[in-house]
Amino acid sequence: MNLIVLNKNNFIKDNIVRIEGRQFEHVINVHKNEVGNILRVGLIDGKVGTGRILSVESDYLTMSIDLTEDPPNKLPLKLILAMPRPKVFKRLIEDCTTLGINEIHLIKTWKVEKSYWSTPWLNDDKILGQMLLGLEQGKDTILPKVYVHQRFKPFVEDKAPEIIEGTIPIIAHPRLDNEIKLGDFYNQAVTLAIGPEGGFTDYELEKFKSIGFEAVSLSDRILRVETAIKVIVGRLYY
Amino acid sequence: MNLIVLNKNNFIKDNIVRIEGRQFEHVINVHKNEVGNILRVGLIDGKVGTGRILSVESDYLTMSIDLTEDPPNKLPLKLILAMPRPKVFKRLIEDCTTLGINEIHLIKTWKVEKSYWSTPWLNDDKILGQMLLGLEQGKDTILPKVYVHQRFKPFVEDKAPEIIEGTIPIIAHPRLDNEIKLGDFYNQAVTLAIGPEGGFTDYELEKFKSIGFEAVSLSDRILRVETAIKVIVGRLYY
Repeated sequence: MNLIVLNKNNFIKDNIVRIEGRQFEHVINVHKNEVGNILRVGLIDGKVGTGRILSVESDYLTMSIDLTEDPPNKLPLKLILAMPRPKVFKRLIEDCTTLGINEIHLIKTWKVEKSYWSTPWLNDDKILGQMLLGLEQGKDTILPKVYVHQRFKPFVEDKAPEIIEGTIPIIAHPRLDNEIKLGDFYNQAVTLAIGPEGGFTDYELEKFKSIGFEAVSLSDRILRVETAIKVIVGRLYY
Repeated sequence: MNLIVLNKNNFIKDNIVRIEGRQFEHVINVHKNEVGNILRVGLIDGKVGTGRILSVESDYLTMSIDLTEDPPNKLPLKLILAMPRPKVFKRLIEDCTTLGINEIHLIKTWKVEKSYWSTPWLNDDKILGQMLLGLEQGKDTILPKVYVHQRFKPFVEDKAPEIIEGTIPIIAHPRLDNEIKLGDFYNQAVTLAIGPEGGFTDYELEKFKSIGFEAVSLSDRILRVETAIKVIVGRLYY
């Protein structure tokens, strides 16, 4: 936890907050902080700054806070992601938040197992919990927007054209012979589509291409989805 | 499993192999292959090519194989990594193998908990198992070399100068103001040192600098070690 992310419920007064639960445990029991220590704090969807511990009780602490700085910029990256296995999804939501990805569209493709949609990790409060962990790691306060699209064709035909507006739409797909390199799009606004394990079908690939997506092959090696996203973010924005 | 990685024990004849256990389960029960199907195979530390299923029994199959191609190139990257938590270590060994990292030095630093060294995941057979999964994902056959250094000072003073020879030594460290960017080292041979959660101490940082390491700060966001490695690999080699 590199930043304590607060919400409105934490506030006792204008600039005094009360912190309990997981965050309290981490600040006091893991990091051994005490009265007077100054920590990084931020308000969800708001500014970041510092907090000074005023008191420590058995299961909560109070802090005076001073929030004046903007959170880090988001990446100009929208992600279209074939819904992964629940365990992978859980970690990915956290990691994408840490990286500063702004918009995530989870889609159904042929090789996405139907059972994936019934994972509890898709519940609003579970997603929020993972995103908070991601914000706290990345010192950010702005939640990414997550959308679920359970039908492929309506998504590509009706939604995707709007999503990609103002961005370069690319699709990561193994085993292609082409000349397009990720580096060609360095620091540009991109919409990135990533398939499931086993990849997009030819039909799906053609549908994406028909609305303007260009396919980019990463390397001879086939990367897991969660690895590929980070490698691509590194190549595009670091 | 994008490649079935074989070892000498699989061979019945010169070009006939027998496959059982986890690989058999995956090929037959998960991917529903049958006699006549052609799959990608490789020999550990050797060539890659194709295998044709000759017979399927209740708990093993036989294949005729033809191995003529070289595995993908390794990245010109050596990794010096503060020993992470066991759960992270387990995944990282697999992922680093998939990415094609050639040499991994696990080191002790001030913020590495002593208990991490007693994880069973450091046993040779456990590491080998994770590396095999990584090879099978990345379609590679060459195992990375993993070294363990449990004393920091002798490592930096006596071992590191040899390790970094012929490479650019860089150290990933958050919260630095400097002008050096990862992109300056694009596609070059690099030795990358990555600290533990909480980072290197000032002393450790200075020791690395004293033998030629330059510190690079990634971004305002603080990334988890396993995310940072992939972002850096993406920026350097994709």
